Order: sequence, then C-alpha cells, then structure tokens
Amino acid sequence: MVLATLDLLRQAGWWNAGVNRVVGSSGAPKGSLYHYFPQGKQQLVTEALQQARDQVGARFRAIFGQRRSLQARVEDLFRFRAETLEADGYSRGCPVAAVTLDLSAESQGLQPLCAEILDFWRDAIAEGLGELPARQRKPVAQWILTTLEGALILARAHRDAGRLRQAGRLLGRAVQSLAEQTMQGR
Amino acid sequence: MVLATLDLLRQAGWWNAGVNRVVGSSGAPKGSLYHYFPQGKQQLVTEALQQARDQVGARFRAIFGQRRSLQARVEDLFRFRAETLEADGYSRGCPVAAVTLDLSAESQGLQPLCAEILDFWRDAIAEGLGELPARQRKPVAQWILTTLEGALILARAHRDAGRLRQAGRLLGRAVQSLAEQTMQGR
Repeated sequence: MVLATLDLLRQAGWWNAGVNRVVGSSGAPKGSLYHYFPQGKQQLVTEALQQARDQVGARFRAIFGQRRSLQARVEDLFRFRAETLEADGYSRGCPVAAVTLDLSAESQGLQPLCAEILDFWRDAIAEGLGELPARQRKPVAQWILTTLEGALILARAHRDAGRLRQAGRLLGRAVQSLAEQTMQGR
Repeated sequence: MVLATLDLLRQAGWWNAGVNRVVGSSGAPKGSLYHYFPQGKQQLVTEALQQARDQVGARFRAIFGQRRSLQARVEDLFRFRAETLEADGYSRGCPVAAVTLDLSAESQGLQPLCAEILDFWRDAIAEGLGELPARQRKPVAQWILTTLEGALILARAHRDAGRLRQAGRLLGRAVQSLAEQTMQGR
C-alpha cells in the first residue's frame, strides 16, 4: 500500500492519493489499510515520502560518488532522470514536489517532512562534491536539486525529456567551471 | 471567478480549484458560473492559466528589459519572487507547475496549454537576453525558468525565501559568465 501511495503521489499529488484509490490500486482489502495505518492517509503518505527519501537519496549518492568529472556526474543525473521519465510516459514526477505544490489545510502537516527530505537529498549530493571547497558544497548541491526539480516540471509539461538533458548540460558546465576556479585558486 | 480559480490553483493545484470552492471564494452565484463558463472547471482553469501567462510574461519582460547587467537582472527576478512569496506567507506558487504535477485523466487536456505557457514565458525572458548570441538566448532563458520553478518548490517546502535568493545568486553568476565569454569571443 505504501508503494501504491507513492505511485499515486508521483502521478498527480496529494489529492490523487485518496484512500479508495490506494486500496483500489494496491489490491489490499480496505480493512487492512486502517489496521496497518490507523492514522489513514496522512500516515500512508508520510511513509511513502520516507521511502522516496531513501531510494532517491541512494541514487544521488551513487551518481555523485562516481569517479568522473563533476560535469559528467551532473549530466548523468539529468540523463538518468530523462530516461526514467521517458520510460514511464511522462507520468511520474517527484513526489515531494507534488505534495509541496498541493499543500492545503488538510495536508499542511506534511510540510516539515517535505523540507527534511529535500535537505536529505541536498546532503546526499553534497557528499559527492569533494572537488569544491567545503563551504560551497551544500549551496551547489541545492542548486543541482533545484534545477532538477524545475526541469522535471518542464519536461512533464512539454512531454519532452530533452528539457532535462539540456538543463543538465548547462548546469553541468557551470558547476564544472566553479570546480576549475577552485583548483586554480589552490 | 477566473481570479478566484487562479488563486486556488496557485495555492494547491488542480484538485483544489473545485467548482464549489471557486464559487465559495469568488462570492458569485453558482448559476452564473455555468452561464459564463458552460464547460465548467476545465474552462475556468484554462482562462485562469491564460491570465497567469500574460501577467507573468509581462513581469519577465519588465525585469529582463532593464538596463543592468545580466547577473543583476537574474538576481532581480529571484529577489522579486522571494519577496512576493514571503508576502503571501509561502502559500502561492506557480499555477502552471501546480497543474502540471496534478495532471491526471481528468485534467490531461490542460497539458498542451501548460507547455505553451512555459514556452511563452521562456520567450519573454529570451527577448531580454540581448548580450548572448542569438542561438543561446532560448536555452539560457529556459534554464532561468527551470531554476525559478525549482526554487519556488524548495522555497515553499522550506518556508524560506532565502532558497530563491540563493538560487538567483548562483544562476546569475553562471549566466553572467556566459555573457562575458561571448563578449571576449567578439
């Protein structure tokens, strides 16, 4: 049921992940939902977002942990995401972005979790930015995450994964030149 | 009613802009909604997004039409958006992003309009990038728009407009250095 919830969130946000839809797409009986998730939708969505936090965080660590140029690693992230978006027919975006843009009186309690996950992802990227001075790693990691979130929106709106690849190329070059300035400064 | 719809979209997306809520927050009688908008919600949302297209496009043109360095214009855009986001208590984001992340069977028909508006905005920014070679203007304008969309998500999730300002500084510097490379190449 957590996986079904995550999938519905990635498709169309908080409002799309109603309890009846989760039950319908997971195939589990409705009674078991309230047995395992006594707090209902809020709890299901929380666990789904936590799952995304760990999965996506591991992916960021794997990509930025590669022994390649910074530019190549940034481009790799955007290329990977372009391929997965194409593979699912432009239907699955970032669940944290989807929940953030759907925050209302009903779901406001999820805002701190969304913030925490974005920081977790930023830190997962920052760990792999060893060629930058320590004080630049988090801001640059956040810039990478920011651009990825924005590019996912444009790519979905245009149904064109090329928008992700293009953002990766421009950002990759810019971040590479920051790293080269650092090396020259040594 | 178009303004009320736009406001609801910016707060929490497609699902939030239900006909009853629009009627409730606009104060107009429900009968007049179907009189003026016989196709109901789809039509209302379409007109709300078109209004956002024109308003935001004019703002982009004003900011990028200024006689200041490219870096200053980029930073100005992000600073302006940080101030408006703070002023509304982090409750209003980009309506096109919100609709894009909520696209479902019910609202899929709005995808081409979302794509068209994003291109309209990209072109409004590109017009003001005269210091870049013509072939770079659209890609760089799209990079600016992409980063803005992403930064709006991070700033709302963190309830911290500083994330917008920081993105503007990093991007402003990167774009400025593209412009300087162009000038040196002449």
